[in-house]
Amino acid sequence: MAESGQPSIFDRDLDRNAANSAALSPLSFLKRAAAVYPNKPAVVHDRVYSYAEFGARARRLASALQRRGFGRGDTVAVMAPNVPALLEAHFGVPLAGCVLNPLNIRLDAANLAFILEHGEAKVLITDREFAPTIERALKQLAKRPLVIDIDDPMTELQGGERGARLGELDYEAFLAEGDPEFPWSLPEDEWQALCLLYTSGTTGNPKGVVYHHRGAYLNAVGQAVTYGLDHRSVYLWTLPMFHCSGWTFTWGVTAAQGTHVCLRRVDPRLVYPLIEERKVTHLCGAPIVLNMLAHAPADVRRALPHPVLVVTGGAAPPSTVIANMEKQGFNVVHAYGLTECYGPATYCATQDDWAEMDLDLRAARMARQGVSYVTLEEATVLDPESLVEVPRDGETMGELMLRGNTVMRGYLKNPSATDEAFAGGWFHTGDLGVLHPDGYIEVKDRSKDIIISGGENISSLEVEEALYRHPKVLEAAVVARPDARWGETPCAFVTLKEGAEATAEEIIAFCRDGLAHYKAPKTVIFRELPKTSTGKIQKFVLREDAKNIE
Amino acid sequence: MAESGQPSIFDRDLDRNAANSAALSPLSFLKRAAAVYPNKPAVVHDRVYSYAEFGARARRLASALQRRGFGRGDTVAVMAPNVPALLEAHFGVPLAGCVLNPLNIRLDAANLAFILEHGEAKVLITDREFAPTIERALKQLAKRPLVIDIDDPMTELQGGERGARLGELDYEAFLAEGDPEFPWSLPEDEWQALCLLYTSGTTGNPKGVVYHHRGAYLNAVGQAVTYGLDHRSVYLWTLPMFHCSGWTFTWGVTAAQGTHVCLRRVDPRLVYPLIEERKVTHLCGAPIVLNMLAHAPADVRRALPHPVLVVTGGAAPPSTVIANMEKQGFNVVHAYGLTECYGPATYCATQDDWAEMDLDLRAARMARQGVSYVTLEEATVLDPESLVEVPRDGETMGELMLRGNTVMRGYLKNPSATDEAFAGGWFHTGDLGVLHPDGYIEVKDRSKDIIISGGENISSLEVEEALYRHPKVLEAAVVARPDARWGETPCAFVTLKEGAEATAEEIIAFCRDGLAHYKAPKTVIFRELPKTSTGKIQKFVLREDAKNIE
Repeated sequence: MAESGQPSIFDRDLDRNAANSAALSPLSFLKRAAAVYPNKPAVVHDRVYSYAEFGARARRLASALQRRGFGRGDTVAVMAPNVPALLEAHFGVPLAGCVLNPLNIRLDAANLAFILEHGEAKVLITDREFAPTIERALKQLAKRPLVIDIDDPMTELQGGERGARLGELDYEAFLAEGDPEFPWSLPEDEWQALCLLYTSGTTGNPKGVVYHHRGAYLNAVGQAVTYGLDHRSVYLWTLPMFHCSGWTFTWGVTAAQGTHVCLRRVDPRLVYPLIEERKVTHLCGAPIVLNMLAHAPADVRRALPHPVLVVTGGAAPPSTVIANMEKQGFNVVHAYGLTECYGPATYCATQDDWAEMDLDLRAARMARQGVSYVTLEEATVLDPESLVEVPRDGETMGELMLRGNTVMRGYLKNPSATDEAFAGGWFHTGDLGVLHPDGYIEVKDRSKDIIISGGENISSLEVEEALYRHPKVLEAAVVARPDARWGETPCAFVTLKEGAEATAEEIIAFCRDGLAHYKAPKTVIFRELPKTSTGKIQKFVLREDAKNIE
Repeated sequence: MAESGQPSIFDRDLDRNAANSAALSPLSFLKRAAAVYPNKPAVVHDRVYSYAEFGARARRLASALQRRGFGRGDTVAVMAPNVPALLEAHFGVPLAGCVLNPLNIRLDAANLAFILEHGEAKVLITDREFAPTIERALKQLAKRPLVIDIDDPMTELQGGERGARLGELDYEAFLAEGDPEFPWSLPEDEWQALCLLYTSGTTGNPKGVVYHHRGAYLNAVGQAVTYGLDHRSVYLWTLPMFHCSGWTFTWGVTAAQGTHVCLRRVDPRLVYPLIEERKVTHLCGAPIVLNMLAHAPADVRRALPHPVLVVTGGAAPPSTVIANMEKQGFNVVHAYGLTECYGPATYCATQDDWAEMDLDLRAARMARQGVSYVTLEEATVLDPESLVEVPRDGETMGELMLRGNTVMRGYLKNPSATDEAFAGGWFHTGDLGVLHPDGYIEVKDRSKDIIISGGENISSLEVEEALYRHPKVLEAAVVARPDARWGETPCAFVTLKEGAEATAEEIIAFCRDGLAHYKAPKTVIFRELPKTSTGKIQKFVLREDAKNIE
């Protein structure tokens, strides 16, 4: 063995140079796609944009930003649904050296103002549909950024309404200021900031998650490998692009040289015709999106002319939803992730013997969060104190933790939150779960979503899964209700399917059939469920409501 | 813009740590596959090895090496055909921190001795079939490495013969010394040396190309994306693993969690049954391998039960070979690369409108070297002096040059060759070619393979392509023959198909029909063609022979 400290023959004269090393950056994907498939449809919206056009528009955007004096480290915020401008910004903004800050279009003016101040946005590109909110947000800012309006001709056709123009100029006019031949270049350092994404926390101020070029490159390639994206793939944008950079499909579909089909609003009346006309092969969305498709009126649903892969995350897809989707011809894959890890970090890899299982058993397997992406390094469940892996018994709870190149750089201007998140060299997701004997991760609950009844832990997810099996239930959420005798009991909030009727007793009896009795809800409230701007059910609202039930 | 030199908000408190950064290494692929698909067939040979076994054997190998004192920077050479031991070495050797040096099994003792000396191999793992050559090579070494024999039970079944045992112990006994629970770890630096591969130059001593973990990781992922490898893929090892780490399919198939089917010898009598029985989806090989399959006797060929993707490189596949392969159900993709860039670096990406072209036109398109892999940074044709890109006219010749992370670190202990190869920040391939208007690269010739006749450049490849179209021609090679009047004229060496007869006049007339007359061979010699150990036709031998024709 080479003596310790003494360099081996491999440590001499074999250094990095311009020929054998380059920064990993998703910018390379668009440069290459525009060169290899210049005439191929890259983006479909009001018209079809070829890869040559997509590339030229991104270069114009970078050039226009630089000509107006913006560059390295400057934040460019975008408030837009899934339109070409936002996709272009995922390349044009970092090509200028700037950092892209996509805004959650469902946020209110106060939150938006906070984010624009905290992220120090120098430019705001904003779709006219959101003019009323943005106008209010801008009034709260100490310093107004350069405001550029997106005037999307598809607004009304996709169910929106065009508000006032707020900005100094129009997005197309801004692009016209730029050079379509602006040179492609890579960041000096692949660790350089690429995106800034604020988590939609349920309490407190949002935190700004910072992505770098290396992580985005790897996660995008990971998506292509995991879901078989290639140049024949057609990706329908049912997942918001502002959400973890569209789970990095913004870059992943481009890496594969596939086609992006934009969509302002997830409406089955828009989705089904697009799948058919554009030959969509892939789409993503939270289970709420799948639910919407599964329960679309019969005159809206169409038989799929070809199989479509649906990646779902944010919550486990209930078995009934999987069954409904599969009946229509969708193949459902369950992925898990957070803003902090570029969207999906684990997915429920299918095992061969699952095909023979009956639906309930298979759905239970598919509901697991599964295994690490090829491009993440490790995903596991650890005891949050000792950081020792929990036994693979499917029972011992621990915290789901991640490490690897597709974990964020940290939270912007928030070193204490960053340190806390990375304590002990792992990213702490805050999700509680178990390891199954096959090594698959299953999230049992967010820490605060555990119900402790008579000293027993009850997973609210497990009770929800039971509720979803009831044929009349459309949506369900379970939280703890304070109880003098048991400490807490499970309290269910339920939305029934259109036209359906049921009693609380009927629902409780149904749950007791499928669950340990102590886990069945003691209370059932029928109502619509409050949701966050990304469509997650707001359990903290329900928890408050559960406290106040007489 | 952030003032020059002044750090932006993104340059503060967002540093690398154990949670958000890890070295890119192909070691991660096997660790993950063994965790996700422990029971899945990973390697098929004398028996089926599961991914759990594959992982455990690689860990045993790493552990056994370390227990015997080998580690960081120590070279471990392997002389073997495509057997499990060589595949395991692609993971076990670097896991021990050592550098893997796969030897070309067709080399003679003198060359092998040179390589073992130059690479300073501390360990040699060698298959018994090659005992006679290795024995002679070992005698020429100043210091004998630890020698370990591979005693493969498939030797005779796959057409080989077991020679003497040369070593201190047997490979299986060596594995037994190691710990199957040896901990997985990553190199501290992804730039660390991983493999050492000697180029089989036609003249001079071979040069030792050094690979690093980062490049191998990226090229492997690039293979998965480019050829759609996934966990259902079954890869048949018709390409030597010693050749550019098997074009990184050693790691790429493992990254995709597919199945490796080993094969000691490319014999259609072994290949066709394996395709059928093992449901092979992918294989690779030089055009000579395709030729062998295309021209296999009728009783050996079998109708393919499913499509098989064949990646070919080393030379453009002649149109007749493409046609024959497609008729059998193979899909042929043409890739281009060199040892210096981990095997394939470009591939001929299919365009939609090619499907409608007739075979000759389509084969001409497919014969191009094409476009950069997604994981390479740039591939283009430059003027070798000015390093300016040649016009995209399909005519102006320049040198094919590459840059990116999948280019070697350099040549071992050969800084002058390294500097020359990387002059001006590009890797100089030594291949001459053109850029077509669509940006596709086409190699016209190795610099020394150009024939200059009456002041006109003639591409020997173009003449060969014409010869291959002749129905009686099995193989052809064209070199320059000195000529008093013209300077040089094209001289063809031709092997006819079994039982076929033809005259030189007939062949020349055929070529004149399809080529500019000055390009048609003036001389045709019927004979078998001399080949290098990797199956490439040895033009330098033919060039000498052409000089001596009376």
